[in-house]
Amino acid sequence: MRINDNYLNLKESYLFSDIARRVSEYKEKNPCAEIIRLGIGDVTRPLPAAVIAAVHKAIDEQSSAEGFRGYGPEQGYDFLRRAIADNDYRANGVDIQEDEIFVSDGAKSDTGNIGDILSNDNIVAITDPVYPVYLDTNTMAGREIKYIPSTAENEFAPNPPEYRADMVYLCSPNNPTGSVLTREKLKAWVDYAISNNAVILFDSAYVAYISEPDVPRSIYEIDGAKKCAIEFRSFSKTAGFTGLRCAYTVVPKELSAKAADGSAVSLNKLWLRRQTTKFNGVPYIVQRAAEAVYSPEGKAQVRETIAYYMENARIIREGLAAAGFKVFGGVNAPYIWMKCPGASWDFFDLLLNRTCVVGTPGSGFGKNGEGYFRLTAFGTRENTLEALERIKKAF
Amino acid sequence: MRINDNYLNLKESYLFSDIARRVSEYKEKNPCAEIIRLGIGDVTRPLPAAVIAAVHKAIDEQSSAEGFRGYGPEQGYDFLRRAIADNDYRANGVDIQEDEIFVSDGAKSDTGNIGDILSNDNIVAITDPVYPVYLDTNTMAGREIKYIPSTAENEFAPNPPEYRADMVYLCSPNNPTGSVLTREKLKAWVDYAISNNAVILFDSAYVAYISEPDVPRSIYEIDGAKKCAIEFRSFSKTAGFTGLRCAYTVVPKELSAKAADGSAVSLNKLWLRRQTTKFNGVPYIVQRAAEAVYSPEGKAQVRETIAYYMENARIIREGLAAAGFKVFGGVNAPYIWMKCPGASWDFFDLLLNRTCVVGTPGSGFGKNGEGYFRLTAFGTRENTLEALERIKKAF
Repeated sequence: MRINDNYLNLKESYLFSDIARRVSEYKEKNPCAEIIRLGIGDVTRPLPAAVIAAVHKAIDEQSSAEGFRGYGPEQGYDFLRRAIADNDYRANGVDIQEDEIFVSDGAKSDTGNIGDILSNDNIVAITDPVYPVYLDTNTMAGREIKYIPSTAENEFAPNPPEYRADMVYLCSPNNPTGSVLTREKLKAWVDYAISNNAVILFDSAYVAYISEPDVPRSIYEIDGAKKCAIEFRSFSKTAGFTGLRCAYTVVPKELSAKAADGSAVSLNKLWLRRQTTKFNGVPYIVQRAAEAVYSPEGKAQVRETIAYYMENARIIREGLAAAGFKVFGGVNAPYIWMKCPGASWDFFDLLLNRTCVVGTPGSGFGKNGEGYFRLTAFGTRENTLEALERIKKAF
Repeated sequence: MRINDNYLNLKESYLFSDIARRVSEYKEKNPCAEIIRLGIGDVTRPLPAAVIAAVHKAIDEQSSAEGFRGYGPEQGYDFLRRAIADNDYRANGVDIQEDEIFVSDGAKSDTGNIGDILSNDNIVAITDPVYPVYLDTNTMAGREIKYIPSTAENEFAPNPPEYRADMVYLCSPNNPTGSVLTREKLKAWVDYAISNNAVILFDSAYVAYISEPDVPRSIYEIDGAKKCAIEFRSFSKTAGFTGLRCAYTVVPKELSAKAADGSAVSLNKLWLRRQTTKFNGVPYIVQRAAEAVYSPEGKAQVRETIAYYMENARIIREGLAAAGFKVFGGVNAPYIWMKCPGASWDFFDLLLNRTCVVGTPGSGFGKNGEGYFRLTAFGTRENTLEALERIKKAF
């Protein structure tokens, strides 16, 4: 019995354990310091009341034989797929059918698992810096990986590369840089994918944070995208589902890829086969919770929470600018990406020592992240205000 | 961009769609017939009250910022891993540590996904007949698959084969045959795995249905098993979680496999890396629900439900025997596997026409299932009694 040797090519990430270690060393030396963590990528506000009510109702149904729900459809219940198609697509003039939507337990799972249906000989392009899951899951599959530099020169929203790639991961709004792909940039990517017979794996887990009117909410707003793009979305950052686990992936029926014999195979059919074989669906009670996000009360509650986080983002963005830092992101994303004086880890220590504020060194997301630093809008209002007051005084 | 061509080698299963079609044709001709379905593999009893109460409590915690839980540990919360280790292992004298337990959304997912960490060059052995997920997921990975005949001659509990295999799937109590592996048989498999440097993938999703005292509840009751076996368990059939989704997989720290350079690599470490990269954990509210299965009330309620199903199993088993059929299973499993006169599909039609009872043709689980038929104990008492009365009259 042999292991999958590709796992030995994975780089261990010590990013968050290194952060934890440095913070704990600092606390040992400065036991009274009040540390504020603006490095976290997890939401902190409570679940919307409509979601909680939906779970209570759905679990009570399970207390009688008549209301009991066992195995559901692996790709999601019709009631949720319909709510998604209606609210996230048709309401914005994008025609996505229910059977192009696959409900899942997370965009992290899906952006990794999607590789199951694609050849390990495909060449993968990812941006640098990047959300590490794209890199790690394709390393596990043994695929060749090429980088697309994401830098201040291209506003952290790069154009397609000169070289050919078969699979391209794009994340917009972006983690970690907080940038977005404009309509023009996204069109350039769709054109690239079509002319290279590539698939775009479009992660828009942060779509709810877009505030500017002309930024595309879905890649399918771009002509031709249904022939070349899979879109990943999540209830995690939209509605506080990081602990409740629900997401979805759109695989258009127009999208196909080549088999070894040259024939075109529907990726929608392959993904359905993958999901029905290796997955058993999201809990019924969680799907009812996700459905409640689209109720009038749910929508209002979600808007309020997003507004709360985005006010934090404004406070961070403007506070850092006032302290003299060059700042990116934070307008259409909960992430603020700042240029720091010197190396990312040096700034981590400097910020911790001067202000007791913890952020994330940009170099942890790739070599082009060196010299940058990520702060997030997911803290409390009080802590966010206090952190920026300290930063403005200290710098 | 190319697809994973192994998907083209998957055989489409028409088993359940064929059943549905034949039943619906029958109903069209016989509109007044009262059809009883004993083919289903899903539970039907309501969730235990302790589980429902735990979900109510856990979701209410999410309505305040203080009680809110976002991302949890991908491998499961400590409270659940401890409850599993204490109740399912240590209470039976088996020493399994918390960090050898990985909580997941289903045994179906895990028995498929486990292949991610193992080489695609490994040779896989599966029984025939078999739960189709083992076959399909390994076909997707392009592995060579060998069969182990599971027949009346070996009481549907085969001994190890003469040939070498690297990965062996065993399911005990067995779906579809209802058989179990005795201590002696299981020991033969552990010896085989150790001498062949193979891994046993031991699916014991139906462990709660074992009624005979000397049948092993865990493969780790066998000496040496921690060096060669991964055990899959689920709350689905134990506590009615088919729609709530929670399971777990045990990967002992003593278990290693070889890398290409001949070095031994811990499978526990590889699986942890796989799960933290491609999975985001089971919902907090579902983990609290699973924890409640181990409370005194939860245990009593689970026992009651299992007893209900196993009384159905007894009724089916004894009823079929009284009608002159040769019957297997149904003592330590919710499945009754009967020898039918002639081909499986012919008997399906015969049973439907004579009694309006629907079962599952054994040939749908593999070629050695031909001539057999599966009935399940998951119906209501009333329907089960009625079905067997009809069968006893008709045969």
